[in-house]
Amino acid sequence: MPEPDRRTLPPGSVIGILGGGQLGRMLSLAASKLGFKTHVYCPDPDSPAFHVTDRRSLAAYDDAVALAAFAKTVDIVTYEFENVPAETAAALVAHVPVEPKPSILETTQDRYAEKSFIRRQGLSVAEFDAVSSAAEVEAAAARIGYPCVLKTRRFGYDGKGQAVVDHPSGIARAWLEIGGKPAIAEAFVRFSREISVIVARGRDGTMRTFDIAENRHERHILRTSTVPAAIGAATAKAAREAGLAVAQAFDYVGVLAVEMFVVGDGAAETLLVNEIAPRVHNSGHWTEDACQISQFELHVRAIAGWPLPVPRRHCDVEMTNLLGAEVLDYASFAAKPDVVVHLYGKSEPRPGRKMGHINRLIPGGSS
Amino acid sequence: MPEPDRRTLPPGSVIGILGGGQLGRMLSLAASKLGFKTHVYCPDPDSPAFHVTDRRSLAAYDDAVALAAFAKTVDIVTYEFENVPAETAAALVAHVPVEPKPSILETTQDRYAEKSFIRRQGLSVAEFDAVSSAAEVEAAAARIGYPCVLKTRRFGYDGKGQAVVDHPSGIARAWLEIGGKPAIAEAFVRFSREISVIVARGRDGTMRTFDIAENRHERHILRTSTVPAAIGAATAKAAREAGLAVAQAFDYVGVLAVEMFVVGDGAAETLLVNEIAPRVHNSGHWTEDACQISQFELHVRAIAGWPLPVPRRHCDVEMTNLLGAEVLDYASFAAKPDVVVHLYGKSEPRPGRKMGHINRLIPGGSS
Repeated sequence: MPEPDRRTLPPGSVIGILGGGQLGRMLSLAASKLGFKTHVYCPDPDSPAFHVTDRRSLAAYDDAVALAAFAKTVDIVTYEFENVPAETAAALVAHVPVEPKPSILETTQDRYAEKSFIRRQGLSVAEFDAVSSAAEVEAAAARIGYPCVLKTRRFGYDGKGQAVVDHPSGIARAWLEIGGKPAIAEAFVRFSREISVIVARGRDGTMRTFDIAENRHERHILRTSTVPAAIGAATAKAAREAGLAVAQAFDYVGVLAVEMFVVGDGAAETLLVNEIAPRVHNSGHWTEDACQISQFELHVRAIAGWPLPVPRRHCDVEMTNLLGAEVLDYASFAAKPDVVVHLYGKSEPRPGRKMGHINRLIPGGSS
Repeated sequence: MPEPDRRTLPPGSVIGILGGGQLGRMLSLAASKLGFKTHVYCPDPDSPAFHVTDRRSLAAYDDAVALAAFAKTVDIVTYEFENVPAETAAALVAHVPVEPKPSILETTQDRYAEKSFIRRQGLSVAEFDAVSSAAEVEAAAARIGYPCVLKTRRFGYDGKGQAVVDHPSGIARAWLEIGGKPAIAEAFVRFSREISVIVARGRDGTMRTFDIAENRHERHILRTSTVPAAIGAATAKAAREAGLAVAQAFDYVGVLAVEMFVVGDGAAETLLVNEIAPRVHNSGHWTEDACQISQFELHVRAIAGWPLPVPRRHCDVEMTNLLGAEVLDYASFAAKPDVVVHLYGKSEPRPGRKMGHINRLIPGGSS
């Protein structure tokens, strides 16, 4: 008898989504397009995904009663972000299938575990070491070299929990800056480009990759993703393979992103894997308008056991995040015929907050 | 001071939608993409649009209290179908802007008024006459010729309320068949093709058309729309112009569809306008996947006073409706990489019911 969580979910099934931000919102929209209902669970009453879902649970991630009630209303649970508490996921698994598997979060929620996992797959990463005191930072830095970067092992995102150490004299300050928490010390990478690959993997092991995006960050926040990336064919192939290796090693079901650094140029290009996001990813938003299928729909199809078509890109594209008050210029973006506007319905345009994105379509290219 | 209903609606505004079927659902999804909230009003508890909206009103169209409460929660009202009772629309107009203007419904809800309106725009229609008795049918048919078609003036759709009359002896039966209601008698058109144009018109009078679709009906229900239509350039131009003339004459705001017959072939092609749908239309569903902007988004933008980009088609496309139990084959459609699947989340696949549609993308063409 097939296991219950290996069934194909028919249209009309209910997909539970942990997290009500823009990723949950776009997952809900993609699920709706396939005839699924969604139920969004989020502790924030101002969750943009609440506007586009059939059911909502406004409750804390450690509310066992609310989680159990939520689990009863859904056929499968997925999530929009990797910091779902492990206990939350575990509580749900007792009641309902959860994809991707919560055990993966244990790896990706801890930078040291994550980097170690990546290295075990035979992929290159920047030199790193676990550190839990200023003295350990000094020892690690002596080995890795200066400058190096301190990054907290847990709950870092968009550059939060990071500090650069240029010289032994800066260690004490940097250690304070990251809150004196368990961290890794990592070699500072002088990259030529940042890229990412979006991978989907189905229940039957089928894997798909989208074309490689080239990403530009500003103050640690993604600003643009451009496709195709200006990298050699061999580098693009290696980047896809890195994504596939990660998905395969996790026995992953759903969409994940692998962010990488390209070091060197031309024939000398090499790759260092930076991090894994076990979810749909900002650097995959371009797929919504430049392909016949988006990362959001591929994720929904993967967890639902549906077929995963090979993504086809029909044009080149540049995605730009709209941060904070930039969203107020929506009318000027909306006036450009080659620009597709996506707004998240967030009420307050706080500085640096991701309020929407635009995809500028560049006819000509395709894959 | 500008009139309140001429303001541009910012993201976060609430769009009220009368009708909760698949068109309301896809309007709601398109509005969400632009950061709007939606509130769907529908008397049917099993409304697919209810699954993807921020707020729902489950109430009858003649429930004045519910309509007034609905009006208070929204910034503008639009509708997914043309049979909204005139009193409903009028009750709303007292409280809130309604687009397209309800007065247009008075014309399109009555085939005689509609055909007369079309003819006044200088557009060709099949010969027709108003009839309200079997005797009047006989007189009209004598003028128009046999065969002719009886169509009830009001509430006809998907072939309901229609009967063909081949000979004077068939009049009594046909008159009974359509329920003995006020009707038009219309010349039977021996068309070579059926086509439609989707037009968007903004508050400032800006107009856009999509490429002409060629439509195939089965048992009066749309089966496929293929783009581009296999018609001459002059015919396509005339079809666009017919759409623009109708939108202009109505001082229309939003998206409408004009369905036409092509009579003759090649250089002898001529057009007869068949009917107007003052709403997004089934023959425009191909726009979701073959253009950078869909009919649904253009409708939302038009009523919200946003810019209307020129639609650009990046491939040829064939839309096929999934009727009744055909939807159960969703997995086989979903397995084709060139097919985009749209399911409406309706619970019961009754025979002939529109359960979803697929867009088959055909690379190569573009506009």
